[in-house]
Parts: sequence; C-alpha cells; structure tokens
Amino acid sequence: MRKIGMQEIEDIALGAALLGAGGGGDPYVGKLIAHGAIKECGEVTLLSVDEVPDDAFVVPIAMMGAPTVLAEKAIGGEEYKRLRDMVSQFYNREIFAFMPIEAGGVNSMLPFAAAARLGTPLVDADGMGRAFPELQMVTFTMAGVSATPMALTDEKGNSVIFRTITNKWTEEMARSVTMSCGGAVSVSLYCTDGRIVRQYGVRDIITRSEGLGRAIRTVRQGAGTPEENFLAAAEGIKLFRGKIADVQREVRGAFNFGKVILEGIGEYKGHAAYAEFQNENLLAAVDGAILATTPDLICIVDSETFTPVPTDALKYGKRVLMLGLKCFEAWRSPAGLELVGPRYFGCDTDYIPVEERAKGGVL
Amino acid sequence: MRKIGMQEIEDIALGAALLGAGGGGDPYVGKLIAHGAIKECGEVTLLSVDEVPDDAFVVPIAMMGAPTVLAEKAIGGEEYKRLRDMVSQFYNREIFAFMPIEAGGVNSMLPFAAAARLGTPLVDADGMGRAFPELQMVTFTMAGVSATPMALTDEKGNSVIFRTITNKWTEEMARSVTMSCGGAVSVSLYCTDGRIVRQYGVRDIITRSEGLGRAIRTVRQGAGTPEENFLAAAEGIKLFRGKIADVQREVRGAFNFGKVILEGIGEYKGHAAYAEFQNENLLAAVDGAILATTPDLICIVDSETFTPVPTDALKYGKRVLMLGLKCFEAWRSPAGLELVGPRYFGCDTDYIPVEERAKGGVL
Repeated sequence: MRKIGMQEIEDIALGAALLGAGGGGDPYVGKLIAHGAIKECGEVTLLSVDEVPDDAFVVPIAMMGAPTVLAEKAIGGEEYKRLRDMVSQFYNREIFAFMPIEAGGVNSMLPFAAAARLGTPLVDADGMGRAFPELQMVTFTMAGVSATPMALTDEKGNSVIFRTITNKWTEEMARSVTMSCGGAVSVSLYCTDGRIVRQYGVRDIITRSEGLGRAIRTVRQGAGTPEENFLAAAEGIKLFRGKIADVQREVRGAFNFGKVILEGIGEYKGHAAYAEFQNENLLAAVDGAILATTPDLICIVDSETFTPVPTDALKYGKRVLMLGLKCFEAWRSPAGLELVGPRYFGCDTDYIPVEERAKGGVL
Repeated sequence: MRKIGMQEIEDIALGAALLGAGGGGDPYVGKLIAHGAIKECGEVTLLSVDEVPDDAFVVPIAMMGAPTVLAEKAIGGEEYKRLRDMVSQFYNREIFAFMPIEAGGVNSMLPFAAAARLGTPLVDADGMGRAFPELQMVTFTMAGVSATPMALTDEKGNSVIFRTITNKWTEEMARSVTMSCGGAVSVSLYCTDGRIVRQYGVRDIITRSEGLGRAIRTVRQGAGTPEENFLAAAEGIKLFRGKIADVQREVRGAFNFGKVILEGIGEYKGHAAYAEFQNENLLAAVDGAILATTPDLICIVDSETFTPVPTDALKYGKRVLMLGLKCFEAWRSPAGLELVGPRYFGCDTDYIPVEERAKGGVL
C-alpha cells in the first residue's frame, strides 16, 4: 500500500502513454483530470494485488470511445459517482477498490480521478498491460469473466447497464451507445473479485508505468546515450528512427484508423518504414519487412525527448523513434492471439514475437 | 375484468392493425405469437383501467424496430421472462399488470403473449391510441413520465437497462442498440403506476381494437354497403379510393421510410393521391391538397375486405381505400403536436384536424 500524489501521477501518465502503444489517449488530458481530482480530494491509496482479499469487489473505471473525442469532452466527477452507484446497486455489493482496465494516457489516469474523488483505493493491475481498441480484448475474457453487467454513463447524465451473452456483444452494443452519446463515455466493466484480478490481471502495471515515466524524465542521467538509457529502461527493441513523411487517417465507427509513413534519419537514412493503427499501432514494417505486430507493443516516441506520440498526435515532419515491447505473456497463447492477434485486426500475417521478427533488424 | 381467448385475439389484431395507421407491424405475425401463447398457457385476464389500484405497478411490453424485421425474427417466451425479471429486480417492485404501449398489429399482440406466458393480467389502455415510430411519442411523455428505467432484450439473450435524462435520449440510445442487435428487440419502458395510466393513458384501446376488428369481419352484415358499414364502425373519414401505382421505399436507421402513389378508381377515377410514411403513414394528399396529417390516423385498407394494409405490405396494383381517423384528443394539444405533429416529421405544414382538412373532400 502506498500513496500516489502529484509527481507519481506525472510519471505514471507518461509511462502509461508509452504502454498505450499509440492509443489510450493523450496523457496530458489524462494527467490534468487526475491532478485536478487529487488536488481537490487528496492522494490515492494504491494497493498491490496481494493486498486485495479474495472476495473483495474490484471495479474497473475507463473511458470508451475515440481518443480524439476524449480531449474535446469535459469529464466531471459526477460520472464516477454515477458509475459507483449503478454498479454497487446493480450487483448489490460494496466496492472495495477501483482498477484501470488498460494502460494508456487517459485510461490509466481516469481510475485515479475516480479513486481520489470517491475516496476509494486503486489496485495496481489492469486487464491488458497495454491499450487495445475493443473492450473484449482483456485477459479476463480468456479467463471466461464476463464484461457485464457493465455500467456506462455520459457527461449529460444518461446511463446504461448492459448484460450480454458474450464480451464481443458487449463491445458491439456498448460501442453503438458510445457513438450515439457523442463518441466518448465513462464505463465500469469486468467488475470482479480480488481472486480473479490476482490470477488473471496484469499485475504491477501502474508501478511499471511509473518506472517508465521516471526513466523518460531522467533519460539524460544514465550511463549511456539518452536513446540507450531509454531503450534499456523500457526493455525496448529498436525498430526504426525517422521523420514522419505522411499520415493517413480515417474515423470509422468510434475508431481512428490510419497509417503513418516514416523516412529514415541518421543510421536509417535511405530506409523507409510504416505503422498501421486502429487507435493503437497494430503493425510495423521497415523496408517492406514486418518487424512487429499486435499484441506486441509498437511504440512511437519523440526521437529527442522520448515522449510517447499517440496515433492522434502523429504529425508531418516530426522526428520519432519506433520501438517494440514484448506484450503480456498470456497474449501470446492461442486464446490470446484469437482475441488480439494480427489476423483479428485484418493484418494478413501470423503472429511472430517481436524479439524474433526484429532480431536481424534493418541495419 | 374479462378473459381474452382465441376469437377475441383475432378481432383485436385486425382492429389494432387499423389503428396502427400503416405501422405497428403485420397483424398476422402478431396474432400467431399471441395465439401460440394463449393456446399453450391459457386465456389472458384483461382489466379496465378502473380495476387497477393507484399504486399498482404497470409495465408495458413492446417490440422496438423496423416492422419489416419483426417478421423475420423469432420471438420466444424467454424475452418476456427476462424483461419481467429485469424490471422487477431493477425497480424492486412486483409487477401488477402488463400493458401495450401502442396500437398496431404486433405491438398490440405481444403484451398478450407476455401476459399469457407469465400469467400476468393486461390493462386495457396504451400510450398512443395508434402507432408512432419513436419511443418518446407517448401520452406519458406529455405527463412528464420518464421512459426509463427501460429494459431491452434481444432473442439471443443480451439485455440492457437504460436510464436517460429525457425520453428523446432514450429513443436515441435504445435505437442504436436495437440496430446493433439486428433491428428488432423486446422492451419494457414507461413502467408506471395505475394512477398515471388512468390519468394519461388511452383507455379502452384494446376493446376499441376488438370492436374495429369485429366490424371488419362482419362488414357485410350491416345496413349499408360494406364500405358504408366499415366507415361508420370505424368513425372514419373517407379520403380516397385507388389502385397502388407506385411505392417508394428506403430503410434509414431502424425505420422504413417511403411514399405510396395511388391512381383513383370508381368515383375517384382521374384523380391521384399519395401518402408519405415513416413506419406509419404521416401525410395524405389528394390531387395535391393535403387531406390529413399526423397525429390523425391515415389508414389504408383493402377496398374489398377492408383489411388494413401496413406500409411494408403496400404493393403495386393493390386496390385500396384510404381513410382518416381522429387521433386521441391529447395529441392535438401544443405539447402533443410538438411530439408528433407534422413538423416534427419534416412535413412542411401546420396541423389541421382531419375532419376540417377533409371536409370538402375531392369530389
């Protein structure tokens, strides 16, 4: 158990944005919301999964929708109070702690805002270890945990409780409500017991985010070059360094689809790369060879500051470093790949771990 | 209090389809579902609104979606059980009786199926006195009654509870879920007290439907010509008699939009008419002059049998009689016209009661 205050939030937001793998929203927006809540209501109590009793009721808090819309909508304290009341009333159980469901600039932060405002502790675990675009894409789905009963509320005060036969149906139905509510809503789903979180959740993800954020902040203090320090701290596999030559975007449904094209710089001069995304980066290729695919994390960061660049902030001319991170081990199982492997997203390739694909590198 | 069996259902379905004003679904489908339930589980107890205690909990049962889809989906008994359990659990109240929310071939019948299968009485009232395409279009909206908490379930077993800030938002959100569930779902909404039903509901609507159905069935037994007998029993204003020359259709969202063009026959030879619809008929014009608009009922029936022809069964060459019926009085108030008047539906005309518009007639 430890307290999370303003500086920790700063680092967690930054590190979580890296784990967002291009998605999960703008960490600046997320940080502002968490900071505002902590300033007003006090620090948040963070619990390790081992401090959560087996039968304790743990409730994830997240936003659902397109990251580009998140930044344009106000997120007040009322939504969390409403979610809490809906969930505790519908389940007829008292909430022991909140939890993030995915890592990312916004969805790692909102649970802090909820925890601060309602005086509820937060568990140091999530259901992805990164960000993914659809709500059935959590480790809990592999464990047979239902996403529902799920609570959804918008900033206007509308609220919905879903109970569905599969988590894919939850996605389908909640997505359509998200669209009709303007593209971004607050949700609680995969409400479950401490025992399940400990067994299937991605543990210590907040602490890992914090470490990554701290490493980015102090990247010039290490033994090697900043890039070496960054890659070492992130346990990242370097994929490419280049200048953004083009970004193709399309909003379809509640998703941001697109592709970013990079022209090599420095040691990559004369080479070319691209990454495809659906909210998050899905596939990275250099000189036509695929070097990484989902569920491994494909992260694009500023080549000087190592600040993560979300897919909706990719801009022509920006110089970036593209790296791969190994995903949470369970995603590499057949069940995991069925949920979040490249073929699910329409990429015509089998999954091969990033550390194998990128072994040779381009240079 | 009286019992409703197979013959009564036959007449109610037929009469309700007339009150559906072109919408409300195919009475044949509705009748089959109600007959099946009554055959299996016994007759239904119908209560007059005066037999419902003030504080009794009355729960409407309906389908939401495009009438053309209704006919293609199976409707089982499980949906009603699920709706009952959702509503009674969420409100924590015991259900005293079910109620239809609109008149129409399907939505007048489904409450009978639910009542038969669950052994629950049915109240002889609804919230429209006809059919309308959107769910906020009920007399209860004028009374400030909320459509929510509203329960929705599909035939697969998915279920949703909505709680919205306005009935228009209920429509918006429930409609998008209806679409994602394949276009037709079962719902309970405007769950309310006996006192409210008595004060704002359209009373005796089932009995009126039954009388209309019986009149159509026995149209050749009266004093005048069948047409005279029919118009007298329906208190209908004759608008046109013609052959369907064209039907334009478009499915947009979960609605059937379109226009039917009629060429005059008999005394109307040489004249032309049309009706525009959105599930239900919205506007009828003869030789370019508008003779009736929503919220008055524009009904199209077979010119020989006087069987109602729903908008999704309009077919080239069919000979029909078009008539107007006065709507429930409350719809003619400013609040009523704001909800269901011609301008709401995009018809560029003020509301003038059908008995005034059609006074001169075309002949």
